[in-house]
Amino acid sequence: MEFKNIQAIVFDAYGTLLDISSIDQLLKELFGDKANDIGSLWRKKQLEYTWLRTLMGRYVHFDTVTLDALKFACRYNGVDLNEKMAETLMQAYDELSIFEDVSPALRKLMARYRLAVLSNANQKMLENSLKHNKVHSLFEQIISVEEALHFKPKPVVYRMAEQQLDLKRFEILFISSNTWDVAGAKSFGLKVVWGNRFNGQMEELSFEPDLIVADLEELAAHLILKEND
Amino acid sequence: MEFKNIQAIVFDAYGTLLDISSIDQLLKELFGDKANDIGSLWRKKQLEYTWLRTLMGRYVHFDTVTLDALKFACRYNGVDLNEKMAETLMQAYDELSIFEDVSPALRKLMARYRLAVLSNANQKMLENSLKHNKVHSLFEQIISVEEALHFKPKPVVYRMAEQQLDLKRFEILFISSNTWDVAGAKSFGLKVVWGNRFNGQMEELSFEPDLIVADLEELAAHLILKEND
Repeated sequence: MEFKNIQAIVFDAYGTLLDISSIDQLLKELFGDKANDIGSLWRKKQLEYTWLRTLMGRYVHFDTVTLDALKFACRYNGVDLNEKMAETLMQAYDELSIFEDVSPALRKLMARYRLAVLSNANQKMLENSLKHNKVHSLFEQIISVEEALHFKPKPVVYRMAEQQLDLKRFEILFISSNTWDVAGAKSFGLKVVWGNRFNGQMEELSFEPDLIVADLEELAAHLILKEND
Repeated sequence: MEFKNIQAIVFDAYGTLLDISSIDQLLKELFGDKANDIGSLWRKKQLEYTWLRTLMGRYVHFDTVTLDALKFACRYNGVDLNEKMAETLMQAYDELSIFEDVSPALRKLMARYRLAVLSNANQKMLENSLKHNKVHSLFEQIISVEEALHFKPKPVVYRMAEQQLDLKRFEILFISSNTWDVAGAKSFGLKVVWGNRFNGQMEELSFEPDLIVADLEELAAHLILKEND
């Protein structure tokens, strides 16, 4: 059976547990017609800056990257970002909602697997977000890249899961909604599930997920079914 | 004087010397209404895959990355890319035109400076493109990342310029139209010019260019003026 060795399930946070679109209403209030352009460029630059800073060897915490990306997105769209707006948006980013399926699925999975989070966010930001949604205590470990001083998909980051859970990589099932994160984790050697929440397309990076699900409830159903095989 | 130590000028290739938009007509013929979407996603994914593969430690040559990005862009847009189309586009990518200002500016600059290219492209692809435009022989060195097995903006790539020209990093002036490349080269320690051909916005990556010019003619004018100060 494909997942018979799995001891722990490790979750990406942003887009996988946390719904980034829960900030959309606030963006609309602050930026009106430009909200969509600013929101999508913000997310794009946030990702790019994690990759570029890791390549350059210039790590800074994810909240700094997030603020820098917001500044770029506003400047690019000709919008003046004042300190109050920046503070409001960064606060909202600490209080993103989780997707509906997350909490019930975690409660099913925790009966059988050790659960952890592995995220680009710094520890404080990550814990704030999970506490805000009252799922913090469902995880045995909440692992931030902060200690590695690199962002995903650098192998050393995925190795943190292996080390902090004291498991072999084939004993860990990693799930992410981010296709590049799926490829990175698979390249490292974890078992990988793509949570394809938005009917996306897998990257052309030579690494494919072991399983594709629409959400975490589907993952729980799949694993519990497998368990009963 | 800011550039008094400069011995060599090192040029990025794609977007700086080579005009990627020279492929637009062919994209239009092949993809009609979807040409713009496919073209911009192609370029976006091409960059992303160089970054992600370097982070993952999974280098493949730039022509493979370019073809992979094209495949993704077509699949994402629901277009069937057959072998003949792929071949035609990859051939066209080997024969991109240079910007109008490149050849006259290089001829001015070569009287005073050693000239080189430092590009993400593999050696063969890079030389094909420069030969096609008859500027190949103006460069003392044509440096591909191929030997480093990493892409920009990893410091080891910029170090290739230092090593192969046998110069200190403050003796090298690097010019790129790509803002992330500007930040990467500056972070490494080169003197850096941003060739802002398209009225863009600099990234929020904590590194700024030493000089901004609109094109290479403006760079030549600036340096020759400085020389006569």
